[in-house]
Amino acid sequence: MDTIEKLAEIFKEFPGIGERQAKRFVYFLMAKNLDYTSNLSDLIKELRKDTLQCSECFRFFISDSKKEKVCKICGDKSIDSSTLMVVEKDSDFESINASRVYNGKYFILGGLVPIVEKNTSRQVRINELIKKIQREKGLKEVILAFSLNPQGNHTDFFVRSQLKPTIESLGIKISSLGRGLSTGTELEYSDNDTLKNALKNRQ
Amino acid sequence: MDTIEKLAEIFKEFPGIGERQAKRFVYFLMAKNLDYTSNLSDLIKELRKDTLQCSECFRFFISDSKKEKVCKICGDKSIDSSTLMVVEKDSDFESINASRVYNGKYFILGGLVPIVEKNTSRQVRINELIKKIQREKGLKEVILAFSLNPQGNHTDFFVRSQLKPTIESLGIKISSLGRGLSTGTELEYSDNDTLKNALKNRQ
Amino acid sequence: MDTIEKLAEIFKEFPGIGERQAKRFVYFLMAKNLDYTSNLSDLIKELRKDTLQCSECFRFFISDSKKEKVCKICGDKSIDSSTLMVVEKDSDFESINASRVYNGKYFILGGLVPIVEKNTSRQVRINELIKKIQREKGLKEVILAFSLNPQGNHTDFFVRSQLKPTIESLGIKISSLGRGLSTGTELEYSDNDTLKNALKNRQ
Amino acid sequence: MDTIEKLAEIFKEFPGIGERQAKRFVYFLMAKNLDYTSNLSDLIKELRKDTLQCSECFRFFISDSKKEKVCKICGDKSIDSSTLMVVEKDSDFESINASRVYNGKYFILGGLVPIVEKNTSRQVRINELIKKIQREKGLKEVILAFSLNPQGNHTDFFVRSQLKPTIESLGIKISSLGRGLSTGTELEYSDNDTLKNALKNRQ
Repeated sequence: MDTIEKLAEIFKEFPGIGERQAKRFVYFLMAKNLDYTSNLSDLIKELRKDTLQCSECFRFFISDSKKEKVCKICGDKSIDSSTLMVVEKDSDFESINASRVYNGKYFILGGLVPIVEKNTSRQVRINELIKKIQREKGLKEVILAFSLNPQGNHTDFFVRSQLKPTIESLGIKISSLGRGLSTGTELEYSDNDTLKNALKNRQ
Repeated sequence: MDTIEKLAEIFKEFPGIGERQAKRFVYFLMAKNLDYTSNLSDLIKELRKDTLQCSECFRFFISDSKKEKVCKICGDKSIDSSTLMVVEKDSDFESINASRVYNGKYFILGGLVPIVEKNTSRQVRINELIKKIQREKGLKEVILAFSLNPQGNHTDFFVRSQLKPTIESLGIKISSLGRGLSTGTELEYSDNDTLKNALKNRQ
Repeated sequence: MDTIEKLAEIFKEFPGIGERQAKRFVYFLMAKNLDYTSNLSDLIKELRKDTLQCSECFRFFISDSKKEKVCKICGDKSIDSSTLMVVEKDSDFESINASRVYNGKYFILGGLVPIVEKNTSRQVRINELIKKIQREKGLKEVILAFSLNPQGNHTDFFVRSQLKPTIESLGIKISSLGRGLSTGTELEYSDNDTLKNALKNRQ
Repeated sequence: MDTIEKLAEIFKEFPGIGERQAKRFVYFLMAKNLDYTSNLSDLIKELRKDTLQCSECFRFFISDSKKEKVCKICGDKSIDSSTLMVVEKDSDFESINASRVYNGKYFILGGLVPIVEKNTSRQVRINELIKKIQREKGLKEVILAFSLNPQGNHTDFFVRSQLKPTIESLGIKISSLGRGLSTGTELEYSDNDTLKNALKNRQ
């Protein structure tokens, strides 16, 4: 494999990028000036060097001093620590955090639980989540925030059952994101589950 | 205008049909055998002849005897009449009714309230709705069920404000369909309103 | 089945209409006033009554007097009859005729020839086409105008082989629509066949 | 701007990548292991270091020895040099070359000519193209291969008019890719230009 093919192979792993676009990226870089590609190459190295994984919420973050162990949100004592939102992945955290609708703490589960799998606890950070809940002072509510699809629903079910003893013994509440009509939902074309949830959760 | 053009003009009014498809419908009919087109023509006449508008909920329905004034749902005393669901149009009613998630009575408002319009009460059956609520015995809750878009939201607001005196004097509850994640919602790509509603309505 | 379901079944046969939209058409008609539906019903009857199939080109057309046997194009002696364009179906004829790029005569084959079928001559008007060519005076070229997909290509091949003896004995030319770049084609995303044709037919 | 934002800015310039996906790329890299990111960073540097621009056809290519001035195709004496295909950009060259439908030489014009612009000769390599044609021995045909859209058509027209004196004095032919039906074209939905070209170029 020559450099073009090697690089295309790497770009193919980028989220949402297929073989064709991976190749286009390579040709795009070949035609760019040296400043652009050097800058890109250096920033990738730098990014990786400065990236730490938070020991509390497990999200990746850019370190200022390379000495901190926790991200800004986990380290910020002014942030409400009575709620802990459990999300699947870093990009879910990014979206929710950018929306400014939530002001509490987060926990990155590291994936959804496959419906047909055994040994699921190895694949997601369920044990780390239990320990986090146990050591967290002042925690009153765990909020499960997964996408509304079969695997998300299964993960919600799995996490609830795994957390049950801990949650109950500590007197902590557990909740999941509400369901109903989302922006743009047209009644006429709604599926039965959405109608059922919207009716049940009317207010 | 010849018959082809006249017929195409009529098909253009069908929901979701543009000029091109309207023309295709006409050519499709020209190539069909006489049985098919006679059947179609007769059924349209028959449909219209047998269609009544319910004097209670204002939806259109097929009459058995041409004598009844109300549709099957409004006339069925076994159906729960403690809730009244207000929808925009007949096709919304059809979808919700087909989903079997709701077992109460309905009311067809006859449209959404335009955001920039005055004299909105003329355009939707708000006065008829008020009278319906006043004469309905055993009614405990009015459920507003509009699509989740700006005009739907505006209509929700408008109907609530118009119903307020009646509702309050009769001690009837008013609610709107719940909001949150709908089937298929991916957290990463959710808009702020959906995230906000999903968080607020967590449970 | 009641009238609603019967009518929905008929609308489902309309080109491009699925179950859901067929139902919407019925509810749309129920809510329309009597003038509209009567007009629609009458025009459908009238359309069918006034529709004749041309004995020359086999397309359906609206008759003025119910006495003519051929359509306006086939009956118009001022139209160039040195070329005969063979198309799959009436709607292809409509598009080409509306584009005003062709001024000769037409022939509706009545379908494409399935690739895996035997007895294909029964399914399309190949025998009628041969007879048409034989009796047509002054015909110099038969133009095959089928969509560019596997079945269209197969039909092109089939018609050419079936017409060969007639064409050759009469000294008539046979051609097919040209291939190459069509409006909007981007070179970067072109398939090999299109590139090959575009290169071969460069000019 | 921190490293995340800086890197997102760079990814935003990648072909087809918007703000959101650029950010996702960065978070994707943050979560990847060191091997992956180092490899990526090094390969980008290497790619750029090994990339030369061919002095003959102006495409970018990977150099083996850093000493060659022309790409493999321009340097290969066994390749037919009687035709020269002029394309807009490297990725057009890649597609055509990968399709194996053409075996001659190429020239990268470096862009399309904007319709409303003056001083267009500065923006594309029209002077370089004229010189290339003048020094090329055995050249018999220049093939213009641009996408079939208004700007592509305008570029075709512009290049033809600029090349006219040279071409005529040298007795070289000029051609453009053929037009007509491309793969998947359905007659019924074809635009007038495509029908016109397909009819004109029938064969």
